Amino acid sequence: MYYIGVDLGGTNVAIGIMDESYQLVRKGSTPTPANDPEGIVKAMADLCRKLVEEAGISFDEIAYAGIASPGIVDREAGEVVYANNINFKHFPLAKLLMAEIPLKAVYLENDANAAALGEVKAGAARGAKNSVMITLGTGVGGGIIIDGKVYMGSNCAAGELGHIVIEKNGYPCTCGRKGCWEAYSSATGLIRMTKEKLAACPDSKMHARVAKDGKVSGRTAFDLSREGDAAAKEVVDTYISYLACGIGNLINIFQPEILVIGGGISGEKENLLAPLRPLMLTESYGGGVVKATELKIAELGNDAGIIGAACLGL
Amino acid sequence: MYYIGVDLGGTNVAIGIMDESYQLVRKGSTPTPANDPEGIVKAMADLCRKLVEEAGISFDEIAYAGIASPGIVDREAGEVVYANNINFKHFPLAKLLMAEIPLKAVYLENDANAAALGEVKAGAARGAKNSVMITLGTGVGGGIIIDGKVYMGSNCAAGELGHIVIEKNGYPCTCGRKGCWEAYSSATGLIRMTKEKLAACPDSKMHARVAKDGKVSGRTAFDLSREGDAAAKEVVDTYISYLACGIGNLINIFQPEILVIGGGISGEKENLLAPLRPLMLTESYGGGVVKATELKIAELGNDAGIIGAACLGL
Repeated sequence: MYYIGVDLGGTNVAIGIMDESYQLVRKGSTPTPANDPEGIVKAMADLCRKLVEEAGISFDEIAYAGIASPGIVDREAGEVVYANNINFKHFPLAKLLMAEIPLKAVYLENDANAAALGEVKAGAARGAKNSVMITLGTGVGGGIIIDGKVYMGSNCAAGELGHIVIEKNGYPCTCGRKGCWEAYSSATGLIRMTKEKLAACPDSKMHARVAKDGKVSGRTAFDLSREGDAAAKEVVDTYISYLACGIGNLINIFQPEILVIGGGISGEKENLLAPLRPLMLTESYGGGVVKATELKIAELGNDAGIIGAACLGL
Repeated sequence: MYYIGVDLGGTNVAIGIMDESYQLVRKGSTPTPANDPEGIVKAMADLCRKLVEEAGISFDEIAYAGIASPGIVDREAGEVVYANNINFKHFPLAKLLMAEIPLKAVYLENDANAAALGEVKAGAARGAKNSVMITLGTGVGGGIIIDGKVYMGSNCAAGELGHIVIEKNGYPCTCGRKGCWEAYSSATGLIRMTKEKLAACPDSKMHARVAKDGKVSGRTAFDLSREGDAAAKEVVDTYISYLACGIGNLINIFQPEILVIGGGISGEKENLLAPLRPLMLTESYGGGVVKATELKIAELGNDAGIIGAACLGL
């Protein structure tokens, strides 16, 4: 059998057809129609049909489709309860997709949760019973896997790991609280810290890089730190210390077998993991006494959402 | 059948015999022998024998005994991995108790986890699928119930909810980190805040109360706040704001059906809950949009550990 995985993003809808060994035999993407929920369903259905045809299979061979959606998702009802960036409010996405194409079932999950499931089924946390995934991107996303399944809480809204306050009365977060982990450990937070340091350090080599790139990015400080720029190194050290603080919190709460780090900043790989590992000895309770959580970089990259979605019915 | 519940504390061993309707038909306690692990096992066995006899039942009618122990507990091995206050290190408590008295089985769990289970089975969170319990005492303890079972993580050390940093580089915590929730929301934290306010406000009515009581306690600020003392009210407001911050974090992570507040400070009941409830609208993600976690005061009081321990094999 095959499984369709749909990763619904604010910019693109990415879809893949996965086989039983978690390989994507076909994938593609199409722009997400803006402010047009019905148009999104139609675009999704069209791309599914196209990929199934290109793969040379029939819908009879598709066990189900899984959809990873932003926002709060009601799995039981197959409904996106609320997703502001794509203008969904109590939108019965699963039912509407089933009305368009001959699918046996459609499963729905929050995108960060689906990515965490993908990493457990086919990525960095393969085989873990309990794992936590964080996604360091525009925000800080979170997905919690307990007993091999997505933990969604009593109202499908659990796992907002970026919205743990780590600095009371700290930097304002988009969620309305102050000092959320997301305000420091997201790429947005890193860019803010980089800009603050640039303003304070006119001699930093980061200025030349910013002039060349035309902007400050999440790579500015990491790249220049490797070139020996002291100001850049300070930014990276500060960023890592916030990251360690938040990861230490998650370990003290979950003590997962594996904690997976994904999202754009995870591209730094060992530049993140090497300084984080020793910090975990002091940032986690029982550090050095209990079996430590293994920190790993996500393996599925941009396909995590698609693969996680395709795994939803397994 | 009956179930023995043992709550092993640093000062006392409290034991109860529970019937099938979660009632304690008999309970008692005995001092915990200091620095004497084998003596603890013996005291435990003696009290079990005495209570079984007093209850007029036989060990044949006891399904099992459950033990709630401080520290890190390996449930599978029946071993207390580490508990500094009673000097246990890889101590095979379950096996040793079974060698003393004719029990069919002995289960072991961390005390905060056992209390959380007790509240789910027979207390404030009765029937909840997912719930979180916090204990506001000398420290801040935590227990996580998922799908009706204690969540213990991959190494039996999960649920250290007091050791979530909420103020990076804040007040030093006993665990070695800085700014843990425990450093603010424990009775110890409340007493520290009260003392700081006393030093800053020589006119506060709290001074007279402290002179009368001979000490600052967790009740000083709450009691005088009710009597209109402005300094006391400021302490209470600050304490509540830290409590709300930590509870908001837990809701964003778990979105449990019920969050149970236990421990000495929970005796304030509505004085805690009334100001906390509206704060949750802004401190939790999707507040006002998703079904809110219900905040409740623990119902089992000092028996939570005994009852939770007695429920371990159910």
